[in-house]
Amino acid sequence: MKNLTTYKKVASHEAEKGTFSTCLLLYSGGLDTSMMLKWIREEYECDVIALTVNIGQTADDLEAIKQKAINLGAKDAIVYDAKQEFAELCTEAVKANADYQGGYALGCPLGRVMISQLAVRFAGEYDCEVIAHGCTGKGNDQVRFEGYITTLNPNLKIIAPVREWSMGRDEQIEYAIKNGIPVSQTQKSPYSYDENMWANTGEGGEIENPELIPPLENILKWANTPEQAPDESELVKIGFDQGVPVSLNGAEYSRKDLILLLNEIGGKHAVGVFHLIEDRVVGLKVRGVYENPAATILIQAHKNLEQLVSTREENELKGFMDQKWAYLTYGAKYFEPVMDNIRAFINEQNKKVTGEVTLKLYKGNCGVVALTSPYSLFDENLATFNKSAAFNQNASAGFIELWNLPQKTAYQLKKDVQKQDSMKTAEV
Amino acid sequence: MKNLTTYKKVASHEAEKGTFSTCLLLYSGGLDTSMMLKWIREEYECDVIALTVNIGQTADDLEAIKQKAINLGAKDAIVYDAKQEFAELCTEAVKANADYQGGYALGCPLGRVMISQLAVRFAGEYDCEVIAHGCTGKGNDQVRFEGYITTLNPNLKIIAPVREWSMGRDEQIEYAIKNGIPVSQTQKSPYSYDENMWANTGEGGEIENPELIPPLENILKWANTPEQAPDESELVKIGFDQGVPVSLNGAEYSRKDLILLLNEIGGKHAVGVFHLIEDRVVGLKVRGVYENPAATILIQAHKNLEQLVSTREENELKGFMDQKWAYLTYGAKYFEPVMDNIRAFINEQNKKVTGEVTLKLYKGNCGVVALTSPYSLFDENLATFNKSAAFNQNASAGFIELWNLPQKTAYQLKKDVQKQDSMKTAEV
Amino acid sequence: MKNLTTYKKVASHEAEKGTFSTCLLLYSGGLDTSMMLKWIREEYECDVIALTVNIGQTADDLEAIKQKAINLGAKDAIVYDAKQEFAELCTEAVKANADYQGGYALGCPLGRVMISQLAVRFAGEYDCEVIAHGCTGKGNDQVRFEGYITTLNPNLKIIAPVREWSMGRDEQIEYAIKNGIPVSQTQKSPYSYDENMWANTGEGGEIENPELIPPLENILKWANTPEQAPDESELVKIGFDQGVPVSLNGAEYSRKDLILLLNEIGGKHAVGVFHLIEDRVVGLKVRGVYENPAATILIQAHKNLEQLVSTREENELKGFMDQKWAYLTYGAKYFEPVMDNIRAFINEQNKKVTGEVTLKLYKGNCGVVALTSPYSLFDENLATFNKSAAFNQNASAGFIELWNLPQKTAYQLKKDVQKQDSMKTAEV
Amino acid sequence: MKNLTTYKKVASHEAEKGTFSTCLLLYSGGLDTSMMLKWIREEYECDVIALTVNIGQTADDLEAIKQKAINLGAKDAIVYDAKQEFAELCTEAVKANADYQGGYALGCPLGRVMISQLAVRFAGEYDCEVIAHGCTGKGNDQVRFEGYITTLNPNLKIIAPVREWSMGRDEQIEYAIKNGIPVSQTQKSPYSYDENMWANTGEGGEIENPELIPPLENILKWANTPEQAPDESELVKIGFDQGVPVSLNGAEYSRKDLILLLNEIGGKHAVGVFHLIEDRVVGLKVRGVYENPAATILIQAHKNLEQLVSTREENELKGFMDQKWAYLTYGAKYFEPVMDNIRAFINEQNKKVTGEVTLKLYKGNCGVVALTSPYSLFDENLATFNKSAAFNQNASAGFIELWNLPQKTAYQLKKDVQKQDSMKTAEV
Repeated sequence: MKNLTTYKKVASHEAEKGTFSTCLLLYSGGLDTSMMLKWIREEYECDVIALTVNIGQTADDLEAIKQKAINLGAKDAIVYDAKQEFAELCTEAVKANADYQGGYALGCPLGRVMISQLAVRFAGEYDCEVIAHGCTGKGNDQVRFEGYITTLNPNLKIIAPVREWSMGRDEQIEYAIKNGIPVSQTQKSPYSYDENMWANTGEGGEIENPELIPPLENILKWANTPEQAPDESELVKIGFDQGVPVSLNGAEYSRKDLILLLNEIGGKHAVGVFHLIEDRVVGLKVRGVYENPAATILIQAHKNLEQLVSTREENELKGFMDQKWAYLTYGAKYFEPVMDNIRAFINEQNKKVTGEVTLKLYKGNCGVVALTSPYSLFDENLATFNKSAAFNQNASAGFIELWNLPQKTAYQLKKDVQKQDSMKTAEV
Repeated sequence: MKNLTTYKKVASHEAEKGTFSTCLLLYSGGLDTSMMLKWIREEYECDVIALTVNIGQTADDLEAIKQKAINLGAKDAIVYDAKQEFAELCTEAVKANADYQGGYALGCPLGRVMISQLAVRFAGEYDCEVIAHGCTGKGNDQVRFEGYITTLNPNLKIIAPVREWSMGRDEQIEYAIKNGIPVSQTQKSPYSYDENMWANTGEGGEIENPELIPPLENILKWANTPEQAPDESELVKIGFDQGVPVSLNGAEYSRKDLILLLNEIGGKHAVGVFHLIEDRVVGLKVRGVYENPAATILIQAHKNLEQLVSTREENELKGFMDQKWAYLTYGAKYFEPVMDNIRAFINEQNKKVTGEVTLKLYKGNCGVVALTSPYSLFDENLATFNKSAAFNQNASAGFIELWNLPQKTAYQLKKDVQKQDSMKTAEV
Repeated sequence: MKNLTTYKKVASHEAEKGTFSTCLLLYSGGLDTSMMLKWIREEYECDVIALTVNIGQTADDLEAIKQKAINLGAKDAIVYDAKQEFAELCTEAVKANADYQGGYALGCPLGRVMISQLAVRFAGEYDCEVIAHGCTGKGNDQVRFEGYITTLNPNLKIIAPVREWSMGRDEQIEYAIKNGIPVSQTQKSPYSYDENMWANTGEGGEIENPELIPPLENILKWANTPEQAPDESELVKIGFDQGVPVSLNGAEYSRKDLILLLNEIGGKHAVGVFHLIEDRVVGLKVRGVYENPAATILIQAHKNLEQLVSTREENELKGFMDQKWAYLTYGAKYFEPVMDNIRAFINEQNKKVTGEVTLKLYKGNCGVVALTSPYSLFDENLATFNKSAAFNQNASAGFIELWNLPQKTAYQLKKDVQKQDSMKTAEV
Repeated sequence: MKNLTTYKKVASHEAEKGTFSTCLLLYSGGLDTSMMLKWIREEYECDVIALTVNIGQTADDLEAIKQKAINLGAKDAIVYDAKQEFAELCTEAVKANADYQGGYALGCPLGRVMISQLAVRFAGEYDCEVIAHGCTGKGNDQVRFEGYITTLNPNLKIIAPVREWSMGRDEQIEYAIKNGIPVSQTQKSPYSYDENMWANTGEGGEIENPELIPPLENILKWANTPEQAPDESELVKIGFDQGVPVSLNGAEYSRKDLILLLNEIGGKHAVGVFHLIEDRVVGLKVRGVYENPAATILIQAHKNLEQLVSTREENELKGFMDQKWAYLTYGAKYFEPVMDNIRAFINEQNKKVTGEVTLKLYKGNCGVVALTSPYSLFDENLATFNKSAAFNQNASAGFIELWNLPQKTAYQLKKDVQKQDSMKTAEV
């Protein structure tokens, strides 16, 4: 492992060998973190506790993962079901109409918040001084894990083996074989995935080159492609209470169950499937293929209902605040105090986001077709284009005169400025 | 016409009877403006010049409209083809990723800008002291027409017959029959339309009640419903030069021709079809059904390309500026000087929005699948998750430490604040 | 009164003669509202209840005002001391660092909120169907009074005599003399004032012409000019609890008493005295001379303390939210729901704004010179430029590399764009 | 120098020993950079070229500095007068009303832009592969220098001796004495300064502890304290052309001369003197004492004139854009492409900022007292509170009705929401 010595630890939160005895490893059961389990024990001469958090990843057999960790020498292996707690984070995303740069509902960034919180909790319970994660040195997730963990408990240190060992894919497979770590078929697929109940994210292969068209039929794990989806559309009716989704087609569900159910229904109809080139917080761009059917349905429904019960002023400012929420959540700032202020804003506006939203799902389409709310600001009497006493049309001309006054005054002056300007240019 | 006397003119830009001799009427050929042509001549004892601006509305036979105006007593009738000029406005909308409250590309607001400019020009040429429009007293369009016209030429006055006469639909039809104005079949349809090459907007009928699902198959004029669209998807490749769409599938087109062509192609694939509840500038909400295939395709393509060539800082701020552009354009402030400042911003950012974007159109879906640009900030060497020398992973830990420092420091203090806070609450 | 008939009522909230029996008049005791008292009784043949709200205006003898109202024929005259309640509004302004367009602490807009709330309350108690105010048709205050009153109780109507009667100053004085209404000396002064404990605003005379220098020594009512202020500076120490000012120099005060006291101390030192050209909501600009010593001291202190306990992210976003708060409060939107959302944001951030701030007052200067807070984010160990173990300087270079990566990458590409651009220009 | 080995280079832009032969040192002539000159030559076994940029620092004898560099072994020493070019950057700051977190006109951040540009230019001319700066590892300036230099020329590398050598003040003085580097009296002062014509910034001593009151009379270099300033006020009249200050009291000056002159006049009157706790980009807070008389005068004048010729919409959005400009400029992002977009916005708005502004300077006060502009939007006919035909007061009531409609509608619904809300809470 020739490159090992080239990595230099400089951050004060990076753990040095010999300074700790137990490390909590964020363990997915995949090749990287399985190698890590071995590698950390050897390189750092410490015990390893494996933590696997269940936030709705469907691909994994969690009992098998636990056993695998034990087999690879973990002192203990924890599998924790956090689906219920994670659904709370997803609900916050609904209220914020989570959308990073064009539809990404922030599944991965929110997953990292959840895992970090639990990692800190279990590190405490198991007396671990250090937490290890499997992220590379180029991505967002190292920023999130290391940032959140040291924020939640500044006494904890970190190790990031992928940054340290700097092996390529071939070296990794070689190391795995040499150390008896099973290399599954999926390691041969060009695609890698990050999955939780809020989103499945695919990277690698053609996805990495924006000039190529990714073959969705080979990549998607949860959803049909639009072409594969049923020929019959389906109406779903989502009920909200103060911004929180609480029911589907009239039946109440827990947040968790609602998300899981909508992933199924939406996935069948190819809803919430897209690619996106996004800006990482470390200054790179990356393309990903996303599947987030439930997120797409819930956010689309929420956004429309919110708009119905909010004024124009509210709708404009909410757009800005939602964007801030998304950029900060993506950018590893979930625990920044500014987020509390933004949340207070968002929660206040959501107090009236109560009602029912009907959406039509069909081959990738997910449009809101009908809405009802006790707090609807849509006033039929005021708005219809038939004659009506409720809206005072005689107020309009006066309104227009003053609404337009600054534009009118300034425009005439502006013409003068431009004239002067062009005269100056002409002189030169 | 019993209610006529109840309307009181108060705005200084409203023309009084007897103060002018010629009125330019914005004439669509429909029932309302046809009645108006007669009504103005009678009520105001003046000549009427009919102006019909062709900005790509497909439903109309413009020569027949011209003849109809003459038949109804217009002193002159002008039909002006502004499609080329209007395509310039649409291009500005592309650069601004025009999106008002969830996908509306601002077809109607931009159409009003174009018509107002031409109305002022022709009012000058035909010595009209007054311009009449056919808008109601409840909508945005009165604000736009009266605002823009008096902004562009403060000497012009306005009449808005619908506000004055305050007839209901039945009274109108009665008046029309009495005055020999043809009442077409379409007057019996519950839907009314505003159409130009950038958007077709439907209102009325079920659209007016957000609790009902509008039957798109009866409403759409341009586009298939997703169900009606072909079973085969279609790839289109749009070329951009400094933010301006210039080619389709490698062939160059004028802006106008590109829009017209994409309306056809996109409409076939049910692209750009949706309903939206939007906030009018006069303080009401209204629901509309929109068809804007070309706009959807071009903006989707542009937004993705812009994002590819812009930094994270740029992408975040552009989102805010685009929203401002949309709210102001919608809100009858197209000639506000602040718009010049916003335009300068937008144009500067668009200088590098050059490249080609491939989209896949399929039953309402319109996703970007591939992109190329000489100014792409996507650096394969930097971003791929394989080992690479280009990105210095050893810089990450230091970055993380300082990136996270304020969050970490503040979070610990915040916990104290919350503790104090809860203690205070407990005391009370 | 020749022009009376020219005013046309068009707003649905304007009361028509004969539709009500009792009118609540917002009565200041000055010439305008005294005339109004008579004029309304005569023109509208109704009873008038005079309401005078004490929000800290110092110039007035409120008992004399009450008596004057009775003498002029008011059926009843109410003087209500709202200083305590108004101080709550001022506190909100402190938390929002109230600043409209360059230092204006929004005394007048906040005063209108208070008076509107009380007017609606007393209109209820006295069975008044209509409320009359003394504002002109050109200003902000008509928008605030009529907007707030009809918002708080949509059944109430309004009369605005100054808009109706359209008398000039000379006609008014003539009318007053004819009707036995005392015309004081101050009517001969070119200046008019709006006063409450949060600000005294002067208009008229030289103030109205931005090219002239207003002679402050003749205009100011509360404060010394800087030249008149003492030659000795004075230190004041303000204590805050969760954003609320609670003490002065270690002694606790009610909000009201603190404001009144700081007006005295600050006024002595010429603090909070300035002129400003501001944008009215009706589209005009106006210049005013402001005196708001307490507001200036409290906001200056609060802003500095808030900055000390908030992160950079918070400080940047708070600047934007404060500006929104100020524009909306100024713009007669205090009860817009968006304000509740903004308030929630502001209150959340203020939870930690606890501590003490020392300011130095001297001849118009009001600078913060020292601060302490239990939630201070200023960490001496981290920040000092002496060598220290607390801040890890070795993290900096890595931080810099990634912080700068997008700028560096984009800059090189941008140079290419500019080259292309200039080549294009050169060709043309 | 025991700690030397503890610093680890990880950034790819940090130069390693033996990889280069000539280093350009940003040389101030002070103790730190004088030591560095020796230290770099010894540690890196390379030639050193000293570059001293004159951007208006008054404290320094530049010829003596040059000689000192030669004496200490520099291969060559450059003194470059950049005052004229730097004045251009200051002008950009005027157009942007430069204000970081409460009045800081960004003297130091702009100085770093200028120096970086020149360093890159001279590194090219003198074949230097590396640039060395004298900044610590805790501040903003390392981020600026290293970021800008590698942005402008990605082939250049950096050395930052203070980060490497990690000496405390005592060790430094010891090293200096041992190496024959003169230690001046000022090294014994607790204060350190960064100076250019746009600002003089003091740090150290009591300034570093926010709980202490810095003794300005001992700290200030340029300006009187308010107490020391003359008892006579002084009027100054600044002329602007398209946002650029061009004249003083009617006489034209170059930008550079105007700034130098206003520093004198303003400094005499104690204008632009304050302390501020600011957020560094590396996540720390720091307090500084600032002197920027010319900046304060010019920005105050500009802001008021800009406001006079801009609409309310413009003024609100400009506030936001100026804040963005300031945060980015402070945050080492001057060459980010987003800055070009912001600049385009700012320049567009400034096209009409032409006119004259009179300010009164008096013992720290710097208030605008009068303004004239050909593009003034202040219309005396519209705005005065005397009766006038120009503003149509009859338009107001209609305006108010529609301006207020959403607030009124929403407020009534909101009351319902709150009722429901409190009922829910009561149940719990």
